[in-house]
Amino acid sequence: MIRAGIVGGTGYTGVELLRILALHPEVEIVVVTSRTDAGLRVDALYPSLRKHIDIVFSLPDTARLAQCDVVFFATPNGTAMLMAEELLERGVKVIDLSADFRLQDAEQWRHWYGMAHACPDLIRRAVYGLPEVNREAIKQADLIACPGCYPTAVQLGFLPLVESGLVDVRHLIADVKSGVSGAGRKAELAMLMSETGESFKAYAASGHRHLPEITQGLAQAAGSPVTLTFVPHLTPMIRGIHATLYGQLHGDAADVQMLYERRYRNEPFVDVLPQGSHPDTRNVRGSNHCQISVCQPQGGQTAVVLSVIDNLVKGASGQAVQSMNLMFGFEETLALNTLALYP
Amino acid sequence: MIRAGIVGGTGYTGVELLRILALHPEVEIVVVTSRTDAGLRVDALYPSLRKHIDIVFSLPDTARLAQCDVVFFATPNGTAMLMAEELLERGVKVIDLSADFRLQDAEQWRHWYGMAHACPDLIRRAVYGLPEVNREAIKQADLIACPGCYPTAVQLGFLPLVESGLVDVRHLIADVKSGVSGAGRKAELAMLMSETGESFKAYAASGHRHLPEITQGLAQAAGSPVTLTFVPHLTPMIRGIHATLYGQLHGDAADVQMLYERRYRNEPFVDVLPQGSHPDTRNVRGSNHCQISVCQPQGGQTAVVLSVIDNLVKGASGQAVQSMNLMFGFEETLALNTLALYP
Amino acid sequence: MIRAGIVGGTGYTGVELLRILALHPEVEIVVVTSRTDAGLRVDALYPSLRKHIDIVFSLPDTARLAQCDVVFFATPNGTAMLMAEELLERGVKVIDLSADFRLQDAEQWRHWYGMAHACPDLIRRAVYGLPEVNREAIKQADLIACPGCYPTAVQLGFLPLVESGLVDVRHLIADVKSGVSGAGRKAELAMLMSETGESFKAYAASGHRHLPEITQGLAQAAGSPVTLTFVPHLTPMIRGIHATLYGQLHGDAADVQMLYERRYRNEPFVDVLPQGSHPDTRNVRGSNHCQISVCQPQGGQTAVVLSVIDNLVKGASGQAVQSMNLMFGFEETLALNTLALYP
Amino acid sequence: MIRAGIVGGTGYTGVELLRILALHPEVEIVVVTSRTDAGLRVDALYPSLRKHIDIVFSLPDTARLAQCDVVFFATPNGTAMLMAEELLERGVKVIDLSADFRLQDAEQWRHWYGMAHACPDLIRRAVYGLPEVNREAIKQADLIACPGCYPTAVQLGFLPLVESGLVDVRHLIADVKSGVSGAGRKAELAMLMSETGESFKAYAASGHRHLPEITQGLAQAAGSPVTLTFVPHLTPMIRGIHATLYGQLHGDAADVQMLYERRYRNEPFVDVLPQGSHPDTRNVRGSNHCQISVCQPQGGQTAVVLSVIDNLVKGASGQAVQSMNLMFGFEETLALNTLALYP
Repeated sequence: MIRAGIVGGTGYTGVELLRILALHPEVEIVVVTSRTDAGLRVDALYPSLRKHIDIVFSLPDTARLAQCDVVFFATPNGTAMLMAEELLERGVKVIDLSADFRLQDAEQWRHWYGMAHACPDLIRRAVYGLPEVNREAIKQADLIACPGCYPTAVQLGFLPLVESGLVDVRHLIADVKSGVSGAGRKAELAMLMSETGESFKAYAASGHRHLPEITQGLAQAAGSPVTLTFVPHLTPMIRGIHATLYGQLHGDAADVQMLYERRYRNEPFVDVLPQGSHPDTRNVRGSNHCQISVCQPQGGQTAVVLSVIDNLVKGASGQAVQSMNLMFGFEETLALNTLALYP
Repeated sequence: MIRAGIVGGTGYTGVELLRILALHPEVEIVVVTSRTDAGLRVDALYPSLRKHIDIVFSLPDTARLAQCDVVFFATPNGTAMLMAEELLERGVKVIDLSADFRLQDAEQWRHWYGMAHACPDLIRRAVYGLPEVNREAIKQADLIACPGCYPTAVQLGFLPLVESGLVDVRHLIADVKSGVSGAGRKAELAMLMSETGESFKAYAASGHRHLPEITQGLAQAAGSPVTLTFVPHLTPMIRGIHATLYGQLHGDAADVQMLYERRYRNEPFVDVLPQGSHPDTRNVRGSNHCQISVCQPQGGQTAVVLSVIDNLVKGASGQAVQSMNLMFGFEETLALNTLALYP
Repeated sequence: MIRAGIVGGTGYTGVELLRILALHPEVEIVVVTSRTDAGLRVDALYPSLRKHIDIVFSLPDTARLAQCDVVFFATPNGTAMLMAEELLERGVKVIDLSADFRLQDAEQWRHWYGMAHACPDLIRRAVYGLPEVNREAIKQADLIACPGCYPTAVQLGFLPLVESGLVDVRHLIADVKSGVSGAGRKAELAMLMSETGESFKAYAASGHRHLPEITQGLAQAAGSPVTLTFVPHLTPMIRGIHATLYGQLHGDAADVQMLYERRYRNEPFVDVLPQGSHPDTRNVRGSNHCQISVCQPQGGQTAVVLSVIDNLVKGASGQAVQSMNLMFGFEETLALNTLALYP
Repeated sequence: MIRAGIVGGTGYTGVELLRILALHPEVEIVVVTSRTDAGLRVDALYPSLRKHIDIVFSLPDTARLAQCDVVFFATPNGTAMLMAEELLERGVKVIDLSADFRLQDAEQWRHWYGMAHACPDLIRRAVYGLPEVNREAIKQADLIACPGCYPTAVQLGFLPLVESGLVDVRHLIADVKSGVSGAGRKAELAMLMSETGESFKAYAASGHRHLPEITQGLAQAAGSPVTLTFVPHLTPMIRGIHATLYGQLHGDAADVQMLYERRYRNEPFVDVLPQGSHPDTRNVRGSNHCQISVCQPQGGQTAVVLSVIDNLVKGASGQAVQSMNLMFGFEETLALNTLALYP
């Protein structure tokens, strides 16, 4: 039984961590912080947790957090980088769900996130928490940078093609659609149901913060720079990401179906669907799975990959717990072996 | 470990049984029948079950079902009453999620369901599977009539008032709103998303099949006939029932809040919210809980009860598994101790 | 051709006024004010108005508004009462979509709206803009208090029963469901799509501001005090209100269907559906119509009335334009004769 | 005043024609046919049309239809081709909203639609009803093949790039998202709200019937064959199409913004948004407009075009009326000059 703390427990990734960890047989949640709701019972804010979480939001306090074995940061960008160092020094493992440690280049981070990085030295120590790429490193890590939701769906979808060298990495396209919970629990006009319901739109077409994270990962997989056009969209549903990926195949059409099946054969949370399938995002709603299908329309040179995840589970809190399981030597699927809600 | 069969595994209550039972530590699913999809892998129809259910739909066959310890009927009305007797004779426990054994009066059943009852003798043997009323009888039963979704939400909401005699049972009103999954998985024009999305409507205002089931239960609780006006509505969401109940209190305003808290103090799946709360249906989405709040607007004589459930869980498959747990001596909450998906 | 101004053009009732008035053959929109967006083109904020509205938001300025023939207030409560007097003195007709002039009793207004009324003398001058009750008074008025959305649906639904004395006015129940646009265009956590989508809830069950407005209107129609239990609910759709109304009939069951048809026979915007119908809110989405049906379940003493409107049209901006048409001697249906969007 | 008939008035494009034509000042609707609902009042099936359409569905009958000046086919594929010839011979103009006359190559039609074409001779006589390309031909035509919804959004989005030769037409990608009304008003399991709500999916990724229609149009614009990868998706909303288009620019980055503005400067229903905009589908909900924006992410060689329409208006019935207006010499925008519903 380990002791876990959550910094920033009032956002969607925070409450999703609570939902998962409340039923984790090896974890006791001992601290949940919130600046705005300190003093309030967690289950008063989230009545779905009644009878399962008997704890009160507290102010973030490093001394108190230092009594945990692991601390999750479910905070806006820029918070974890201020507190991680002290916790690490005190022997606490840190799992950051924000973007603070995702980019290896602090200068690039400043460019996309609009502030200087507070602890560039820690960046190298952080392991990018995508188990399908970094499983062994995660096991050894004490600081995890959890991948973003878009990057998880896009990288898992492209990896087999990119790693195998079958695709032209200078012309990759990722057309990705996200449910509205991806925007977080923030009072914003643009995210009202009256604004986002019954409508579909692209946003940040000229450049989204997840772009450098994705290209960093794909470049590593390719062993060379990649050029990606990434257009995110908002779709009127709450949970789910659907990535539609396009790549130009080199030379002869390979058996991409088999390539994908082989790559993910032993992965507990990546599932390649039979040829001809189209994954619905609902297949993975509330679960930690990624479902993928792949095809070559009209037998042509363009490979189309469809990759779906739940943005709050495999795209955030579920993947964070998957890393935690690896870091503490638990079974990788512990507390994550749930089934999607259907319908 | 018991062996379970599901007759009618392709509807929403069927697949919800599969979702719950797949993770039940004491149950092995050995038969899932479907007339239309026999021969198909269950996870080909329901990709959300991939990696968890390794079974093929088969034609309904009593001999095969008789090898089970328990058989669930997740069938349209009129099917279970044709097969239950034979299974019972062979020592199989039967849990019927349809309406076949809910009404004690076969004549009334014929009136509301438009066909003669095939085995009126069995009706008496059936126990109405509402554990909050019939827990001990359920433990002894071999034939369970699972309550309908509306009747579950309405009865749990009204019971404390009706049992205590505090309310005028000749003037009860139940204004109930259901998500569209309550209509089942049937190809009907009226249930297309284009028809039900972004719109709200009442239906069957002049009389719905669940009315006699509710009044039967409430009359039993009251020890006298009750008169209920019940108006069901369709609300544009998939899961959830919200019952808004109105009753005229006798004499002085009693402390209804305490009445409710006391009545349900020991119930694992009924949760009375603090005074002033309004339960969202999302609080219980995907979980077996019923959340209830109660108030007397303007301190007046009218009690207003708000009662929410997930129509497919506490209103159907979850409640069926709760009965099964009781019948087989398992912990009542086994495999049901999950948390609602939020957001 | 009259000159119209809109104060508070950035909310949903403001933009709905723009949508309707932009195609009104007798109206020129000359001022649209917004404190937050002054200087911005209206169609930059609302691209749906491109090619139809060539105007820039300006700061509210009485001198400029005084050049209008009519000024609409689509503002939060408490604004119109500060500006109306001066405009009226300058001969401008004022149509207030907020609650400032709805309640005849300034003390009651203070109680429900939490502030003292700034110009109680004007309250008497204001005509309650429900044409189905006050048509002739509206024609003569220079200050209109537009009814709230809930009050419109509930009053139109109850009026025939209450006016005719057929119903017990001490035990009226209004269970009303609203789409989320009723909450307005405000950045509130509770109105995010992640919070309101796929969920249903009651709110303000112990007392909502629209209660005194409804009872004021019904008491006037009854010629005696009325007691109403009013429970508003939030339903996961954008537009539409569905009121389900319950009343106890006196003595013999009257022919309520004929009563309703007769009451509304000459009303251009109230439509009584054939017996046995259930109106969908989508029937009136985007239109100024109210559709009503009525029944007596099980032939009993309880009358059930179903009444639907579009909260932003007949419940706000459409009804405001209907009043404007009457005030200026235009055809009552001018610019309002549109059809609901289906599906 | 012309006389119009609608064959197949019970589908979504049929009722949308009714909504538009009911308010068209130059059109009298004299026949609306339906095999399934003959004898029923149109407004009994569609209560949104009450007070506006006083007509009864009749069986399809060429003699009766021949009394019309124009007949719209809002039928499944394969019906118009059986009736068009006789109507044309009798001097009736025919506007077909189905796919029967869209493809110039009868053999290709047979391949994609699974049946032999019944009147290949008429194909040449049909004018493809995209006014932005064929305005003059439409004015002279007596047989119009209305474009499909996807083809309208994709062609309008790609035309400026393809006509100007700025883009590599061998590597076009169209990632398109449609609301569920695009599937029509058919009782299909897959289109239930429980199936399509709160989920996102691609379909027909390996080949959709609209592909040959789009490539036919783009090849004509390019003057050379084009290769298009077209992946349609289903998004959980009712109305709207959002096309995200990707093309590789030749040589230097041209000023694509100006190119688009110039191309559509005089088009009443195509609106190029300012640089940096992202059109929401709600901007055009219920209106006949197409809104387009274009950008080159990271200043690169890939042009991204965003194009939105209402699939039932500009993608079907509105565009059909636009063609009708042109054919009969009415103002092109007559009865189409409405504003989108927002929110």
